Amino acid sequence: MTYKSAEIKSIITEILEEKKDKGGIKSLYFVGCGGSLGALYPAKTFMEKESATIKSAWINSNEFVHSTPKDFGVNSIIVLACHKGNTPETIEAAKLGKMMGASVIILTWLEESEIIEFGDYIVLYSFDASPDHLKGDIDYSGEKTMCALYVAVELLAQSEEGYENYDKFYEGAGMITNIIRKARVHVSERAVSFAKEYKDDTVIYTMGSGASYGAAYMESICIFMEMQWLDSSSIHTGEYFHGPFEITDANRPFMIQISEGSTRTLDQRALTFLKKYAKRIEVLDAKELGLSTIDVSVVDYFNHSLFNNIYPIYNHELATNRQHPLSTRRYMWKVEY
Amino acid sequence: MTYKSAEIKSIITEILEEKKDKGGIKSLYFVGCGGSLGALYPAKTFMEKESATIKSAWINSNEFVHSTPKDFGVNSIIVLACHKGNTPETIEAAKLGKMMGASVIILTWLEESEIIEFGDYIVLYSFDASPDHLKGDIDYSGEKTMCALYVAVELLAQSEEGYENYDKFYEGAGMITNIIRKARVHVSERAVSFAKEYKDDTVIYTMGSGASYGAAYMESICIFMEMQWLDSSSIHTGEYFHGPFEITDANRPFMIQISEGSTRTLDQRALTFLKKYAKRIEVLDAKELGLSTIDVSVVDYFNHSLFNNIYPIYNHELATNRQHPLSTRRYMWKVEY
Repeated sequence: MTYKSAEIKSIITEILEEKKDKGGIKSLYFVGCGGSLGALYPAKTFMEKESATIKSAWINSNEFVHSTPKDFGVNSIIVLACHKGNTPETIEAAKLGKMMGASVIILTWLEESEIIEFGDYIVLYSFDASPDHLKGDIDYSGEKTMCALYVAVELLAQSEEGYENYDKFYEGAGMITNIIRKARVHVSERAVSFAKEYKDDTVIYTMGSGASYGAAYMESICIFMEMQWLDSSSIHTGEYFHGPFEITDANRPFMIQISEGSTRTLDQRALTFLKKYAKRIEVLDAKELGLSTIDVSVVDYFNHSLFNNIYPIYNHELATNRQHPLSTRRYMWKVEY
Repeated sequence: MTYKSAEIKSIITEILEEKKDKGGIKSLYFVGCGGSLGALYPAKTFMEKESATIKSAWINSNEFVHSTPKDFGVNSIIVLACHKGNTPETIEAAKLGKMMGASVIILTWLEESEIIEFGDYIVLYSFDASPDHLKGDIDYSGEKTMCALYVAVELLAQSEEGYENYDKFYEGAGMITNIIRKARVHVSERAVSFAKEYKDDTVIYTMGSGASYGAAYMESICIFMEMQWLDSSSIHTGEYFHGPFEITDANRPFMIQISEGSTRTLDQRALTFLKKYAKRIEVLDAKELGLSTIDVSVVDYFNHSLFNNIYPIYNHELATNRQHPLSTRRYMWKVEY
């Protein structure tokens, strides 16, 4: 049976009810590969920051399977993201979850796939499947990143701890689609300039912090490296000053996320430095892009969805200018690995 | 008052005794910047994998200060690594720890520094301060990475959970210095070849997994980026196949850690692919380097120390061949940031 994001609240209620006599839920694992792992990053950060009692971790599927946390089992929830339900390592992690008696929540896009037989709950997320994700007519509050956050928010809210900003969080979730749509229009012209400026570069760095670091990670590994074959790394803006900043010069391009919320000051500090010593910077500022209308108590967790859905506008222009379609691969789907 | 690594056992006993009537210790935070954060990675992985009940996280100092976990306080231990005790963000994190009533353990190299007034326990770690860390005559079991691990191991062992591989762990700690010394000699010739081969490259990737991913991170940000101004990123070998591997070609250099222990299979899979599609690979194999003499139940946690102390042999040769001393900086110590 499949579920929609709005049903995650009742999924958690059901799991907690079922596990009540078995010791309850004590740990929450976010597991996936590449972009699917990156998409779970805000939920990991949420648990790290908001929960005192529920253990949580964010782990690559293959590492999870081969180096499984010792407590993983009946008292765990595992949330797996698997876009088409056919990533072998993530299927193995789901199987392991089933075998160990964990509650297995699978976030996926396809209703039918290999992975679903190993899930207790199959949550179908919304996804912009149009070419280069340009159409933008989806409900962004139903994307996988948001689904993982709903699991975290509901688990905390329905636990003894509770979550005081619960209403504010759902208020934010109700606003994110409009914010993203407007922001995508807002950056359309600068995305054209960006693509012209950077089309001949061979390396582009992404930067970010806090709950939205995952968006910088995804842009770096899934777009620049995977889809454009560019050298890249996602630099945490707090880490930047402790090593990476020495590569800064007038030529190296940086695409920096300025989050709204608690880590904004880290991003701004990096930007100030970049403005002085780097000359080629593309700034994605969540405040300018309208995110500040979401309450300050929860805004941290919405930066990722915003940035992650702004990038496609840039990516499409960059791919077009570089005459390197985003669908081009040399290994994926082509060779065994 | 300062302590040595061997006293960490009694430090934890003292903290647990002191906090007994205040609710005990419920969370353990590893906080630092850049290389000092990377060095704490194995301890973070240890807690994630071995402990069911103690919350743990690994966070950049500036992010920790601005986006502090809500439960941080009296029932927390914060372990900070700060080499010379003068990193402003880490000093702020220590101050915050003091203010919130957490037990503050500072791992540092200097006996006197700015940070020590904000620590409850100042642990002086061993460090090879010889030029380019080449001398190799130190007790590697007293390094900061090991000190952080001792905190984790002792906290778990002295908690209700206990740690079943406690004796094996200390047995491994007793072996690591000799293993590292032999391994450093073992790679000396290949480090010369490596430096000749890669001296004109502008990008070098590092790769790793599991508890030793931190060593790959440190080599990438502290050596290749900071000290050699090379483009770089540390790619997790499990994540490699989900994006980054598309940049693989016959020219791009990869320095890959093959860990001993639970995630070895991830590293080997990446190496098999590299051998087929990349032509320029430098392999650091923990098994070949003698780590397998440490018991399989704990060997995961020693890979980092091994790799981290093999790299200097390579780094010295690379810097010499590139005529770019490891001490060269353009921003650090020179400009405000």
